[in-house]
Amino acid sequence: MSGWLDEVPWNGDGLVAAVAQDAASGRVLTVAWMNREALERTVQAGEAHYWSRSRKRLWRKGEESGNVQKVLELRLDCDADAILIRVQQGGGIACHTGRESCFYRRLENGRWVETDPVLKDPALLYRKK
Amino acid sequence: MSGWLDEVPWNGDGLVAAVAQDAASGRVLTVAWMNREALERTVQAGEAHYWSRSRKRLWRKGEESGNVQKVLELRLDCDADAILIRVQQGGGIACHTGRESCFYRRLENGRWVETDPVLKDPALLYRKK
Repeated sequence: MSGWLDEVPWNGDGLVAAVAQDAASGRVLTVAWMNREALERTVQAGEAHYWSRSRKRLWRKGEESGNVQKVLELRLDCDADAILIRVQQGGGIACHTGRESCFYRRLENGRWVETDPVLKDPALLYRKK
Repeated sequence: MSGWLDEVPWNGDGLVAAVAQDAASGRVLTVAWMNREALERTVQAGEAHYWSRSRKRLWRKGEESGNVQKVLELRLDCDADAILIRVQQGGGIACHTGRESCFYRRLENGRWVETDPVLKDPALLYRKK
């Protein structure tokens, strides 16, 4: 039953990079990391779970902000160490800065320029409910 | 002039994950790695260059197959270690298996199922010219 988990090319730290893409807009929202448990829970719950390398703990995307990533499809690549998740992004906001995507800076003439608007003040996003 | 390179969150090995997305179809094509030199050349040449961790050398995407990735846009994410490149994929084939995208396997009922067709026989793709 868990053979599909063994086929994932876990790296030396037991992690795999996971790219989340908004299924509706096609935008690449986030790149984060999963361990085996995070991937298993992602599939079971139908919501993206990641491994936080800084906090060293499992983390359900949106557990604080409410902006969960509902999983529509999971894809595995040929030989690198990556998974692609096509998601429905709750609240339309994937980034902790309150933006749609974490990739909100664009290289323009040798500078990273912020091109995307803040849709919601992060202070409101993470206010204790 | 190279301040933008210093802003990239290089990991302990001096690498950053680079997600290539087809600008026309929106499909996520590949996830590969760049070192500083690869990123610099990518910007200078306007074509994706990566660092091959297995071969331990710089590598111009498409150098053998001819299917280069013309760079339309580079984006940096908020805090992880990733770059997003929006590209025009030469030949419409990004994967060494002859498929459009490296993410050609989809999780279906506990199995990774190949969902995408081989567009060109890899033997022809890598035939010496």
